[in-house]
Amino acid sequence: MNLQPVQERIAKLAEQRLAALDVADDRLAEAMHYALMNGGKRLRPFLIYATMDALNTPQALADSAAVALEMIHSYSLVHDDLPAMDDDDLRRGKPTCHIAFDEATAILAGDALLNGAYEVLAAGQEVSPQQRLELITVLGRAAGSAGMVGGQAIDILHVGKELTLEQLERMHLHKTGALIRVAVQMGAICAGASDQQTINALDTYARAVGLAFQVQDDILDIEGDTAVLGKQQGADEALNKPTYPALLGLEGARKKAADLVEEAVTSLSGLPGDTSTLEALARYIISRDH
Amino acid sequence: MNLQPVQERIAKLAEQRLAALDVADDRLAEAMHYALMNGGKRLRPFLIYATMDALNTPQALADSAAVALEMIHSYSLVHDDLPAMDDDDLRRGKPTCHIAFDEATAILAGDALLNGAYEVLAAGQEVSPQQRLELITVLGRAAGSAGMVGGQAIDILHVGKELTLEQLERMHLHKTGALIRVAVQMGAICAGASDQQTINALDTYARAVGLAFQVQDDILDIEGDTAVLGKQQGADEALNKPTYPALLGLEGARKKAADLVEEAVTSLSGLPGDTSTLEALARYIISRDH
Repeated sequence: MNLQPVQERIAKLAEQRLAALDVADDRLAEAMHYALMNGGKRLRPFLIYATMDALNTPQALADSAAVALEMIHSYSLVHDDLPAMDDDDLRRGKPTCHIAFDEATAILAGDALLNGAYEVLAAGQEVSPQQRLELITVLGRAAGSAGMVGGQAIDILHVGKELTLEQLERMHLHKTGALIRVAVQMGAICAGASDQQTINALDTYARAVGLAFQVQDDILDIEGDTAVLGKQQGADEALNKPTYPALLGLEGARKKAADLVEEAVTSLSGLPGDTSTLEALARYIISRDH
Repeated sequence: MNLQPVQERIAKLAEQRLAALDVADDRLAEAMHYALMNGGKRLRPFLIYATMDALNTPQALADSAAVALEMIHSYSLVHDDLPAMDDDDLRRGKPTCHIAFDEATAILAGDALLNGAYEVLAAGQEVSPQQRLELITVLGRAAGSAGMVGGQAIDILHVGKELTLEQLERMHLHKTGALIRVAVQMGAICAGASDQQTINALDTYARAVGLAFQVQDDILDIEGDTAVLGKQQGADEALNKPTYPALLGLEGARKKAADLVEEAVTSLSGLPGDTSTLEALARYIISRDH
């Protein structure tokens, strides 16, 4: 699996869409650019495009959706890193937005990317007005209080508290799972998918991949090396955050991640198109070292 | 002019729409509720409904737009009050969100209201999918980096700096003006207005009212009483923020506000429907004491 073409595509699209936003203040524009062009893996856009492949539809139909989703992901990292939240100084080996700029600018850059994501979707000419409205609906739900932001709130309130496996899973399904799941949903909407079996199979895949991603993140936080991770290793442990290895042991967590990837891959068998990229992506999740 | 029926209507609608968001975490839901049910004047929803009156269309068609706009306004207050921004402990005589809860919860409640506003608009069944998309487009532009957030960024960077009248006006047209202007635009969209002369007249009105509102805010910050204002009197002066009275003198600022209100009222003469509420609202701006 090769992420690089997607990374280049998103970089180009992001420049275009940021320029179209007519940002009223130069420093704000710089901070938004910094937050969005942060060397991210672009996994969520990759998922959208791979879903288009699996449904035999042109990737270009999903360009606005891919950028908008990455804008939401980027804003959430900026706000997550703030002193009042996770208080992280480093992100992918670079100073976080509030360190590179200042806290107020980071808050506003996050807000601007959040608003901007919906602007980009509403203006996305590749798909019909009805599809744009569907994209906004599913993204709002996945990104907002029923999804990612809800998961962040659960996370914050449980730092230092004992969590059951079920509670941990619920937190992650919201916090990181929702945006991964919605990536596949957005791909399906851009592709005009209407067959319920196809939609369900994609959702099973996305749910399993999202959880596997989180389990692997927890494993990497214990095993990884700060230089490779680009963030402080052991950061979760230091905050006494509940993790899968803490609940299942390191071997148990590895098995859990592997099982989830198998579940994801199996669910692809019913799909009409070329699912090799979605499969490779699922396998990449547990082989990555950062 | 009577704001109370609009306040009651928004309170009822906000409860409904918040419940429909399926907030994943109880404390987050409380903080969102606290931020939205904050005793606000509901001026922006009032503007939307008054615009519907002026265009002879049923107010109920604008219900989702009115709540969504107030959610955006509420999120912006929560983030504006944060320690890294204006660092305000009081808002309308009550503890600000980060004081009543905590900073992380306030950041997330703001993010949740922001996402939620677009969810509410996308789900608003009162108007056509095309109108919903238009509402999302104009709100995104007015709330985001080309509008309010852009204005907040300009404001932050100019605290303690000399500003010309032109620069001050540009900042306010973005920071507070954009949401007031978009209120009238959203009303026009919900009413299905298509006559360009009508649209222009409403925009002239909204632009003038937005600036008058800000000039009066600056005047009240000097004249007002903390108990009536519900925030610390002289707060802007203490931060050495540029204000209209500082640039024009108190009498000059009063004249400026009065002139803007006259400009707003005059622009209404070309409109087809009953403009008495829009007129009363413009006059209320400079007569209010908080």
